[in-house]
Amino acid sequence: MKIVALAGGIGAGKFLRGMVRVAPPDALTVILNVADDVVVHGLHVSPDPDSVTYWLGDAFDRERGWGRRDETFRATEELRAFGAPDAWFNLGDLDLATHVLRSAMLREGATMSEVVTRVAARFGVGARLMPVTDDRVETRIDAVDARSGDRLDLSFQEYWVRRGAVDPVKGVRFVGVTDSRPAPGVLEAIGDADLVVLPPSNPVVSLGPILAVPGVRAAVGERRPAVVGVSGIVGGAPLAGMADKLMPAVGLEVTAAGAAAAYDGLLGSWVIDQRDRELAGRIEATGVRVIVTDTVMRDDDAAERLSSVVLDATI
Amino acid sequence: MKIVALAGGIGAGKFLRGMVRVAPPDALTVILNVADDVVVHGLHVSPDPDSVTYWLGDAFDRERGWGRRDETFRATEELRAFGAPDAWFNLGDLDLATHVLRSAMLREGATMSEVVTRVAARFGVGARLMPVTDDRVETRIDAVDARSGDRLDLSFQEYWVRRGAVDPVKGVRFVGVTDSRPAPGVLEAIGDADLVVLPPSNPVVSLGPILAVPGVRAAVGERRPAVVGVSGIVGGAPLAGMADKLMPAVGLEVTAAGAAAAYDGLLGSWVIDQRDRELAGRIEATGVRVIVTDTVMRDDDAAERLSSVVLDATI
Repeated sequence: MKIVALAGGIGAGKFLRGMVRVAPPDALTVILNVADDVVVHGLHVSPDPDSVTYWLGDAFDRERGWGRRDETFRATEELRAFGAPDAWFNLGDLDLATHVLRSAMLREGATMSEVVTRVAARFGVGARLMPVTDDRVETRIDAVDARSGDRLDLSFQEYWVRRGAVDPVKGVRFVGVTDSRPAPGVLEAIGDADLVVLPPSNPVVSLGPILAVPGVRAAVGERRPAVVGVSGIVGGAPLAGMADKLMPAVGLEVTAAGAAAAYDGLLGSWVIDQRDRELAGRIEATGVRVIVTDTVMRDDDAAERLSSVVLDATI
Repeated sequence: MKIVALAGGIGAGKFLRGMVRVAPPDALTVILNVADDVVVHGLHVSPDPDSVTYWLGDAFDRERGWGRRDETFRATEELRAFGAPDAWFNLGDLDLATHVLRSAMLREGATMSEVVTRVAARFGVGARLMPVTDDRVETRIDAVDARSGDRLDLSFQEYWVRRGAVDPVKGVRFVGVTDSRPAPGVLEAIGDADLVVLPPSNPVVSLGPILAVPGVRAAVGERRPAVVGVSGIVGGAPLAGMADKLMPAVGLEVTAAGAAAAYDGLLGSWVIDQRDRELAGRIEATGVRVIVTDTVMRDDDAAERLSSVVLDATI
């Protein structure tokens, strides 16, 4: 069985950690969002690829909810003492090694695909990881300063990490996406998949930029019966993150039905939480089979159970 | 009183730590060697400027003999786990912040002078620090592989840190130096100085590249009566480092007299150790006044005494 997952960061990592307990890791290909990437102190940081890699490599800090376990922040504290302009972005000392390596590789002409493969290998990740594109695509958030009312044009990390997602959002753009091409193997992996999973990720800024790379949305749509998505919106709110702030800005209702609508024309099946069972009829009316289960992944066992439901959902 | 010191790294830092106890820090300008600079994992590392800054900022690790005190090496250990090609060069986590900041500044168009000033300010250094040049000059060591006999063309750090200075040296070059220009303020500082100090540094690879920047050697020579050097060679061997391996390759005897010869035509006075008193006559025959004292800086008090001797030596 060949499984492809489109992945944002933390929700996807948590889910995939369960998936590799029920499916052989080498059956799994993960296509990663790179539009949240940000240059910090001149270093190329890839939050979503790293989160998934650290999750699958059992190096993720589950308590903190981001970055590496057993982390320290000595270099970042020093950069703060220097008054470095990017010191608002916390880079752990262990994590920093990943960014230094990636930046050096990219500067020497390596592709993002090569970087992702190298980092995954170091963490012993058995699944195949690939960025959706080797080209630079950048999510920009058009917002309004919560205090001054000024227009803001923010990178995703500035919006979310630096400013705490407090600024009302007017729109979301993926700069560079129309000229981007899928990375080698991306369309082939989707075309060959017996199951294409959309994990419980932010539909706007995590899976949105993946599907916006030319050819990807169409490739997923062609596999529609094999496409199973999981709602990250439960009870009208995201389980984590700030999707509730972004979905309205792109015309999506903040419900499991609104999240399904983000994948209009793509879904064979849509997994929603028990709490949202009353939405099942509305979603099924759009031609999507709905599966109701417990979607909250409290631990790896819960993630494994959810993955089993997804595996069983292939038509 | 205006004092200018030409500085390599560790010996100079140790000496200058004594100097700022006997002279007001703002009387002191330190002109720094940048030819040992090396790019590690794409980051610009400046060993000599950082050593002097950490010494003067009381952040230097005196026991280890390099880098910052209370240092950890977590990022470098991670880079080693990645198999990064430059992981032979140990970068501490605190130290890494300096290199990340410097690299980001240089990439954004700052000069090395601006970087040196910024780093010195963060460590509260009262003396004025400046690189000898804002241009890229690189010391290259022509050597012979100690095992294979093959010719080697090594950066200074490869020769010294990576390979442990075991390869016989055939020559030393300063690539880029003929096209380099003194950094703003360098010639003016030398011209205005009441005292120009050559601390006990390696005459070949520490002070050599400073004096090789066009205009610098001549500027020092014009101040000859005010120039006081201290021999880093005591009893026919360097107190630290590998000058004994390099001096013969450029035709210098490994003695306090050979070190003085490296500064031919520049020295007003030359301070040598008690152990080398029998060399005084030979050196004085070259027209240099010789001062014999205890030059071994066991601690800051000893460095202060040596600095007092140098201050008193101005003619």
